[in-house]
Amino acid sequence: MAPVKISIIGAGSAVFSMRLVNDLCKTSGLAGSLVSLMDIDEKRLNAVHNLATRYVKELGADLRFEKTTQLEVSLRDADFVINTAMVGGHSYLEKARRIGEKHGYYRGIDTQELNMVSDYYTLSNFNQLKFFVDLAKLMENICPNAWLLQTANPVFEGTNLIKRCSDIKVVGFCHGHYGVHEIVEALGLDIKRVDWQVVGFNHAIWLNRFSYDGENGYDLIDKWIEENSKDWKPKTPFDLQLSPAAIDMYRFYGLMPIGDTVRNSTWKYNYDLQLKKKWYGEPWGGADSEIGWQWYQERLKMITEAIDYLSSNNALKLLSLESYLKFLPKGSVPEELKEEIKIFTSKDALSGEQHIPFIDAVVNNNAQRFVINIPNKGYLSQIPDGVVVEVPALVNKSGWHVEKIDPPLNEKVVKMYLIPRMLRMEWALEAIMNGDKEILVEILLRDVRTQSYEQAVEVIEEILSLPENEPMRNHYSKKKRL
Amino acid sequence: MAPVKISIIGAGSAVFSMRLVNDLCKTSGLAGSLVSLMDIDEKRLNAVHNLATRYVKELGADLRFEKTTQLEVSLRDADFVINTAMVGGHSYLEKARRIGEKHGYYRGIDTQELNMVSDYYTLSNFNQLKFFVDLAKLMENICPNAWLLQTANPVFEGTNLIKRCSDIKVVGFCHGHYGVHEIVEALGLDIKRVDWQVVGFNHAIWLNRFSYDGENGYDLIDKWIEENSKDWKPKTPFDLQLSPAAIDMYRFYGLMPIGDTVRNSTWKYNYDLQLKKKWYGEPWGGADSEIGWQWYQERLKMITEAIDYLSSNNALKLLSLESYLKFLPKGSVPEELKEEIKIFTSKDALSGEQHIPFIDAVVNNNAQRFVINIPNKGYLSQIPDGVVVEVPALVNKSGWHVEKIDPPLNEKVVKMYLIPRMLRMEWALEAIMNGDKEILVEILLRDVRTQSYEQAVEVIEEILSLPENEPMRNHYSKKKRL
Ligand SMILES: NC(=O)c1ccc[n+]([C@@H]2O[C@H](COP(=O)([O-])OP(=O)(O)OC[C@H]3O[C@@H](n4cnc5c(N)ncnc54)[C@H](O)[C@@H]3O)[C@@H](O)[C@H]2O)c1
Ligand SMILES: NC(=O)c1ccc[n+]([C@@H]2O[C@H](COP(=O)([O-])OP(=O)(O)OC[C@H]3O[C@@H](n4cnc5c(N)ncnc54)[C@H](O)[C@@H]3O)[C@@H](O)[C@H]2O)c1
Repeated sequence: MAPVKISIIGAGSAVFSMRLVNDLCKTSGLAGSLVSLMDIDEKRLNAVHNLATRYVKELGADLRFEKTTQLEVSLRDADFVINTAMVGGHSYLEKARRIGEKHGYYRGIDTQELNMVSDYYTLSNFNQLKFFVDLAKLMENICPNAWLLQTANPVFEGTNLIKRCSDIKVVGFCHGHYGVHEIVEALGLDIKRVDWQVVGFNHAIWLNRFSYDGENGYDLIDKWIEENSKDWKPKTPFDLQLSPAAIDMYRFYGLMPIGDTVRNSTWKYNYDLQLKKKWYGEPWGGADSEIGWQWYQERLKMITEAIDYLSSNNALKLLSLESYLKFLPKGSVPEELKEEIKIFTSKDALSGEQHIPFIDAVVNNNAQRFVINIPNKGYLSQIPDGVVVEVPALVNKSGWHVEKIDPPLNEKVVKMYLIPRMLRMEWALEAIMNGDKEILVEILLRDVRTQSYEQAVEVIEEILSLPENEPMRNHYSKKKRL
Repeated sequence: MAPVKISIIGAGSAVFSMRLVNDLCKTSGLAGSLVSLMDIDEKRLNAVHNLATRYVKELGADLRFEKTTQLEVSLRDADFVINTAMVGGHSYLEKARRIGEKHGYYRGIDTQELNMVSDYYTLSNFNQLKFFVDLAKLMENICPNAWLLQTANPVFEGTNLIKRCSDIKVVGFCHGHYGVHEIVEALGLDIKRVDWQVVGFNHAIWLNRFSYDGENGYDLIDKWIEENSKDWKPKTPFDLQLSPAAIDMYRFYGLMPIGDTVRNSTWKYNYDLQLKKKWYGEPWGGADSEIGWQWYQERLKMITEAIDYLSSNNALKLLSLESYLKFLPKGSVPEELKEEIKIFTSKDALSGEQHIPFIDAVVNNNAQRFVINIPNKGYLSQIPDGVVVEVPALVNKSGWHVEKIDPPLNEKVVKMYLIPRMLRMEWALEAIMNGDKEILVEILLRDVRTQSYEQAVEVIEEILSLPENEPMRNHYSKKKRL
């Protein structure tokens, strides 16, 4: 395959923009390619474009970056489309969450049993989900053979929705499976000697296989729990892989929940902040408490501010650590940012995001193992075919080759976690695909926080009445189909 | 097939005893057969046996009745086993319900979203469910080729459990599909010109086909709703087929729920008595409110008292209406009992229960259409094979022949009603089959009435501490498997 065109939609994303630019510039197989940065926020777009063009020059890489606020322009001739856009941004999430809390829904109505991740809205997120479908349909017209790398959340609902509404080749991406590395590190093991698999849905994956030099790795986990669990303290609100909640879930389900799966529990650990602290650790109570999520938003703000600062100072060398210390007083750089900066200032370190290596694997047959979200095809025999599952697969020029899932997930995980989680997806899609508002109400009637029918109706109506939800109001009042 | 042996377990059942005796004595194809009445309650057993032997004589039928309190004795040489036993009786249900209510679970913990029928306990009903399994395993030893006609509730959980724990040929029976007749009657139609199908799970069936002389029968339902719905009043607490709840479910799901399905809604209609009255009608608020259920229990008491009275007055003619008027002052005979008495005093009228006609169909090839609970085998393509479904089937000597389900159920019914209901069954079975008490707690954590983990634990512990639940306590504390 010749040099390709990669289109990044929502290129201003605080989480992804610089990581993708980093990986692109350091992947020699993509030399000569064109990267189209697309965002509706011109300021963010310009800043990221500025950094990207400087970064590629400093690294001496062969890559062109274009920028546009027009989706159609960006998609023209695209071979790969990475969607990281979040329509409405974090401010919409907070707005909708506040309305939820006003009506008695702690952390908002979209925070649900088995789906507690704070930017993973499935009910009140019409604009975002509709954007996914519009994007895919536009791709059908403009670049029908391109791959859509779906990264914006909700990945589970989103990839299923896109699949059901279009013929676009869509793959969902998440970095949640790195939770395995956290376990391996805590246990003091060498990752190269570990044989592991995770499987499930996005944010709902379980460590079905874990062995070390051929021995049962779960024995080592049990030992760690016995010896170290009581002294565990989280380093950040996201440091949850070995939290009491994770261990309690392991005890109940018989397998370790991996990555964001730990956050997606039932209410047992989540009724209120106090309980969250008990199960997800002090002082934050995990990533999805009011405290933990604010911490995250502050980090994101720090990143966008860094991008702003760097992009408006063209003289700064991006590969030089000092550039960052200019605006981040050394002592106060948070651990996670230190790591990001270390990667960004290195000549060859990759971010760990899977998107660009995935493209490299497809384009250049640089076969590699990924954990990706693709339609089930017997991989999980207990889950209907067609439903998008998160599975380990080897990817090369001819596409993905899913590993045999061995051993299969136990019945408890399947029946008490995966199928209920799948139902949430089915319900959300049934609502949006049929413009059926009553389904939104009915979903809330099955929510432990709902104590009356009126409560459910009122919270939905108030969310619908937000000015930015005019399209949602229109969709649901006319019972439109997607 | 020669004359057969039919064993009735729990023969003292208020609901079934006399109906089954009635049908047996009036089914000429079963002449020469032996009916074994089995119950642990000797008083009830003797009374039913007394009536059965007198009844068969009065009718001049050729049938022998034996009685026993020993399961093993009854099963010996049985060809058909009808299980109507309720271990612990209604008094246990009320005891467990009271504990539930004390802990904030209106109508008890077993009353759940999509499973609100008041004698359909799936969580605290260990003794009953264990009895099902014991009975099936005993049958494997004593009469391995006999059919088990499972009638005691919970039929859905019970038939699935029996299937998973034994190789016995089990079929679940219910009369809920007669709700179709209620609709036909209300619409003033001739049932012979109606083409109907119902399908789903026990207490979860939907009118997937309904046409009248080839025309869409749902148009007639819509017309009835428009013209008559506002004037609807229930004649009994069980007269719910055209209640506002049923019509609201129809509006939401797009199909009519049939029979007990109407009772098995979500909490929308059930948060409290007042709401139940609104949706299931005044003055009872449906069969499953505190008022409606008391009404039902009084009816059952009336029947057992009638059986007592008649059985201790051997001089009374059972086929004579006057015998009944002796203890039931004419004016006060409730409508439903009048109908039962009319049938019982007639020379040939059958009760409407399916058991005996089903046996007749199998034994004598008297082919007939039934609605039965049997393992799915592609009949409902959206439900896993093996899960017990309630479907219409022609039954004859060679067994059941399920009708093509046409049209199939819509996605909303499947995804928002059937699969969630199936999960409740899977959860209950996962708990009991693995002796896993924490699953019982987890089920409650997903119940809208639970507001804290402690609440769920405490109610389970108190139910477990009942003296009659010693076997359950033992099972769950030792994590025994079934
Ligand atoms: N899959 C994963 O592993 C993973 C991890 C973290 C975050 N996420 C998701 O990534 C997304 C971005 O998160 P973030 O925190 O960086 O958000 P962000 O708000 O910082 O970035 C989103 C970008 O999308 C742009 N955008 C909004 N509407 C757009 C439109 N119509 N067209 C094009 N661009 C548009 C915004 O201007 C913004 O630059 C979210 O959906 C988040 O949940 C995914
Ligand atoms: N499938 C249906 O259509 C349908 C309809 C109504 C009721 N039911 C069910 O039928 C069952 C009976 O209901 P009921 O109201 O007549 O109850 P009931 O208490 O009047 O009758 C149950 C009988 O079972 C007997 N019994 C209890 N333990 C026994 C044991 N270990 N061995 C043998 N017999 C035993 C009792 O002595 C009693 O005579 C219940 O489970 C009820 O839910 C089913």
